[in-house]
Amino acid sequence: MQATAFVPGHVTGFFSAHPAEDPTEAGSRGAGLALTDGVGVTVEPADGKTAVVLEDAGGDRQRMSPGSIDAVETVLETLELDAGVRLEIDADLPLGAGFGVSGAMALGTALAANAAFDRRLSENELVTIAHAADVRAGTGLGDVVAQARGGVPIRLEPGAPAVNSIDAVPARARVEYVTFGERSTADVLAGETDRLTEAGKRALSRVVSEPTLSSVIHASRRFAREADLLTPEAREAIEAVAAEGGQASMAMLGDTAFAVGTGLTDAGYDPAVCAIDPAGATLEG
Amino acid sequence: MQATAFVPGHVTGFFSAHPAEDPTEAGSRGAGLALTDGVGVTVEPADGKTAVVLEDAGGDRQRMSPGSIDAVETVLETLELDAGVRLEIDADLPLGAGFGVSGAMALGTALAANAAFDRRLSENELVTIAHAADVRAGTGLGDVVAQARGGVPIRLEPGAPAVNSIDAVPARARVEYVTFGERSTADVLAGETDRLTEAGKRALSRVVSEPTLSSVIHASRRFAREADLLTPEAREAIEAVAAEGGQASMAMLGDTAFAVGTGLTDAGYDPAVCAIDPAGATLEG
Repeated sequence: MQATAFVPGHVTGFFSAHPAEDPTEAGSRGAGLALTDGVGVTVEPADGKTAVVLEDAGGDRQRMSPGSIDAVETVLETLELDAGVRLEIDADLPLGAGFGVSGAMALGTALAANAAFDRRLSENELVTIAHAADVRAGTGLGDVVAQARGGVPIRLEPGAPAVNSIDAVPARARVEYVTFGERSTADVLAGETDRLTEAGKRALSRVVSEPTLSSVIHASRRFAREADLLTPEAREAIEAVAAEGGQASMAMLGDTAFAVGTGLTDAGYDPAVCAIDPAGATLEG
Repeated sequence: MQATAFVPGHVTGFFSAHPAEDPTEAGSRGAGLALTDGVGVTVEPADGKTAVVLEDAGGDRQRMSPGSIDAVETVLETLELDAGVRLEIDADLPLGAGFGVSGAMALGTALAANAAFDRRLSENELVTIAHAADVRAGTGLGDVVAQARGGVPIRLEPGAPAVNSIDAVPARARVEYVTFGERSTADVLAGETDRLTEAGKRALSRVVSEPTLSSVIHASRRFAREADLLTPEAREAIEAVAAEGGQASMAMLGDTAFAVGTGLTDAGYDPAVCAIDPAGATLEG
């Protein structure tokens, strides 16, 4: 049986890192936007070794070994799928640019493989497996749980569903983004994070007291400045959007600027356009 | 500003009732299906007294006082909207037939009114307000939190988001239903519920150990029998679907039979057709 899952992309606006020995307890607090641009994963039984075909945003197709995407490999191992699987991953978004693509691949693999191989796990169990895989791979701390929920998730407490606490801002909007390059989440998280954590706590407290989209973007922009994470291109884009009266910030962690409405277009950029995804990760019908 | 929210219908397959003094702690455990047929609520500022226009599944429009829908009135009061509001409610589903329409109206009102009147509440706060209003009105115990999540929610612990615990079955399917008449949730819940609670606990434990759609329907059918809640028409429909190799059960609490796939059609009924709603309640973009 073949099964397909869609997982929205997720730009984190601000966060604080919460490491833990147990990857289901590790994670982050923060807030971000789930996006209608995301990742589709189709899983089906196949003969021989596990094969992965990745189609990127430009339509280029590439054969990969599952080991080249750590979080996906871990999910397959957890589901005891060591061979005999064919994965087709269709990514609307670039890797390494702050859209939580690795988390989306992991969660999509978990949802689709559970259906294709009749593993009979619940949604929370699948989210837990994907979250732990993303944390272990060092590619994400909170994208998976946010992608599972959809909308504009506020991660109040870190970790997988059994231990975390999530609220959300009730909002829909057009979202624009421009990506300037790649950036390694693992490298930033391996560095000094005290300043980042303090700035993340302040941003979260602002958004909790006023859970609106405008307040999320405002807190995100301030966080990026305070945590000293702004890249020169992202800073320039955010300032250009602000000069036109719009609202933008930077995807954490990627060299990507995002704006609500027509912010980047108004500022003269030629952005990709999507919207806030209301549904969260879903198995396709 | 005008705002519209869509809230899926929800058929509960089985449940156990958990009353409490505080309506945010009261609720039910159980499982059910969120449906793409649901309720749209549009809210906008207007002069004078609050007015409600209800358009039913047949397209008939009816002017009502807000007091005629208890849960909606309570939501408006909680949001301090005593006047100056126009609500348009578009219900794909019949009231009093086990689809959680009152809960959907309450949650849709909360989401749309929050946006239209810039109340700046979070999703969990709005779900809490609607849940408490539905519980107080005696029209539902778990529909609102299930409708907020979408999919095939398993309510592990009762109550509003701050205290409940929800998992879900990862499944998509076509859903068919036939409604034979109305039934009062309040009357059933006011009666002897010990037997119902015992049957509900057994059903939940079955679904937790095997979270599949098939197991939800199977546990629901057994629950309806054990709790002695089957109406004669629903029993006949469920047996007719089973005779054709299909899977059906009864909506709790309504005189409605529902089936996955083409179960009711195959059994010779002329059902309404929808699907499992993957998104849960959403504000429209």
